[in-house]
Amino acid sequence: MPPAARVACRVEYDGSRYSGWQSQPHLDVSTVQETLEAALSRVANAPVRVHCAGRTDTGVHGHNQIVHFDSPVSRSPKAWVLGGNANLPFDVRLHWAVPVAGEFHARFSATARRYRYIIANTPVRPAHLGGQVTWQRRPLDVGLMHSEAQCLLGEQDFSAFRAAACQSNSPFRNVHSVSVERRGALLVIDIRANAFLHHMVRNIAGSLMAVGSGRAPAGWLAQLLAGRDRTVAADTAPPDGLYLVDVSYPGHFGLPATPAGPLLLGGT
Amino acid sequence: MPPAARVACRVEYDGSRYSGWQSQPHLDVSTVQETLEAALSRVANAPVRVHCAGRTDTGVHGHNQIVHFDSPVSRSPKAWVLGGNANLPFDVRLHWAVPVAGEFHARFSATARRYRYIIANTPVRPAHLGGQVTWQRRPLDVGLMHSEAQCLLGEQDFSAFRAAACQSNSPFRNVHSVSVERRGALLVIDIRANAFLHHMVRNIAGSLMAVGSGRAPAGWLAQLLAGRDRTVAADTAPPDGLYLVDVSYPGHFGLPATPAGPLLLGGT
Repeated sequence: MPPAARVACRVEYDGSRYSGWQSQPHLDVSTVQETLEAALSRVANAPVRVHCAGRTDTGVHGHNQIVHFDSPVSRSPKAWVLGGNANLPFDVRLHWAVPVAGEFHARFSATARRYRYIIANTPVRPAHLGGQVTWQRRPLDVGLMHSEAQCLLGEQDFSAFRAAACQSNSPFRNVHSVSVERRGALLVIDIRANAFLHHMVRNIAGSLMAVGSGRAPAGWLAQLLAGRDRTVAADTAPPDGLYLVDVSYPGHFGLPATPAGPLLLGGT
Repeated sequence: MPPAARVACRVEYDGSRYSGWQSQPHLDVSTVQETLEAALSRVANAPVRVHCAGRTDTGVHGHNQIVHFDSPVSRSPKAWVLGGNANLPFDVRLHWAVPVAGEFHARFSATARRYRYIIANTPVRPAHLGGQVTWQRRPLDVGLMHSEAQCLLGEQDFSAFRAAACQSNSPFRNVHSVSVERRGALLVIDIRANAFLHHMVRNIAGSLMAVGSGRAPAGWLAQLLAGRDRTVAADTAPPDGLYLVDVSYPGHFGLPATPAGPLLLGGT
């Protein structure tokens, strides 16, 4: 038997209709993983099991989710993309597929992940983009939120922003960059780290909005971080505005570069 | 009986779920007008009939639709907005309500309308923003489209871009401004005129995309316009990317100004 050929793909999805990434075979719910596996298995005419870079939660979006799978058959990259898309619902799309070395792993080879959290900061709930952005009625001070967020940089214990259900062995993560900027009525939190704890971005977003709206004082984020007590921080922000926008890998794997997104911010 | 008090409102709606603006009492379809009238009638506890600035088609969005109605009861502007929104589905929103002079008419007092047509110009159909943008796979030359569109300016016979079903007495309209610009992967056609013929923006968008993608030669729009023959122009572009973004009225009516939108371009 020839060694299985490993393939990496970029997957984009609107998470609104899905109970997150991960298959839940014992529950009657729809997930992105099972939807994608069903489509690729039809292209392969044999079962295909995919592994992703970041297992997103219910309602969270994938702009640039990276997956790999071991192909049971020989197919061209174009056949995976066109055939996969022909068998996928419109809210899940394959953008590219490339053959990769057998030691490539979408999750374990990744050196960094980047998320964007998009907030519609408007007095009236917008009629548009339901499920695609988080609505915040209170005016947010974007400059304050940006400076407040800088305390997150570097290798630190993020227990204050970690979900109770988090299965990671360590509460330490290394935040490479974080910014908050306004694009008209939309406010974008952009955060890159080696990896994230469960609910880490949404917990940070919730506490940043508390400071930005004046419900918590400036300096609160640094206090929360130092206190390492999740019960003191703000509520977890909704999944609606959260997008996995990029995953970094060592250059030798040769994966295509991806422009920053999502589409709603002009990214492809 | 006291004279009825006239009220003007700004309405924002996602047209995806609706069979256009106008009530169709003999058909089993949902329209924005009947949805809004039902909500306002509940606030008034009496029937309310609304009149709009521009009767949008099935699937077309209202970012800044203006309506007026004669209130059968006395209610504060805040009561109309909060009460209306409490009774409306999330894809239809009231942003403001103001008392206006009895001679104000949302349609007949309007001096100009402005539409935006948003195209996602990406090789793969986007997983996001289905129904909110029109997808065009072929690369579009935005500079060419912008210069091509300038022949539309001024008072002209727009028969070439007029739907067969158009009920207007005259094929003449006055285009005040038109531009085509790129925002990342999104391309935005922005057009302002005293008024529009039926399907005029979508017919212009279809022919502009034909030129921009190289399927028709530069100068084609001017030829079509001069020929005044609708059967020669390109197909009507889909409603998905079309937004009514602004309506102008004489200043003495005192209506609030509206920032350009829609939300997906950062407008409120």
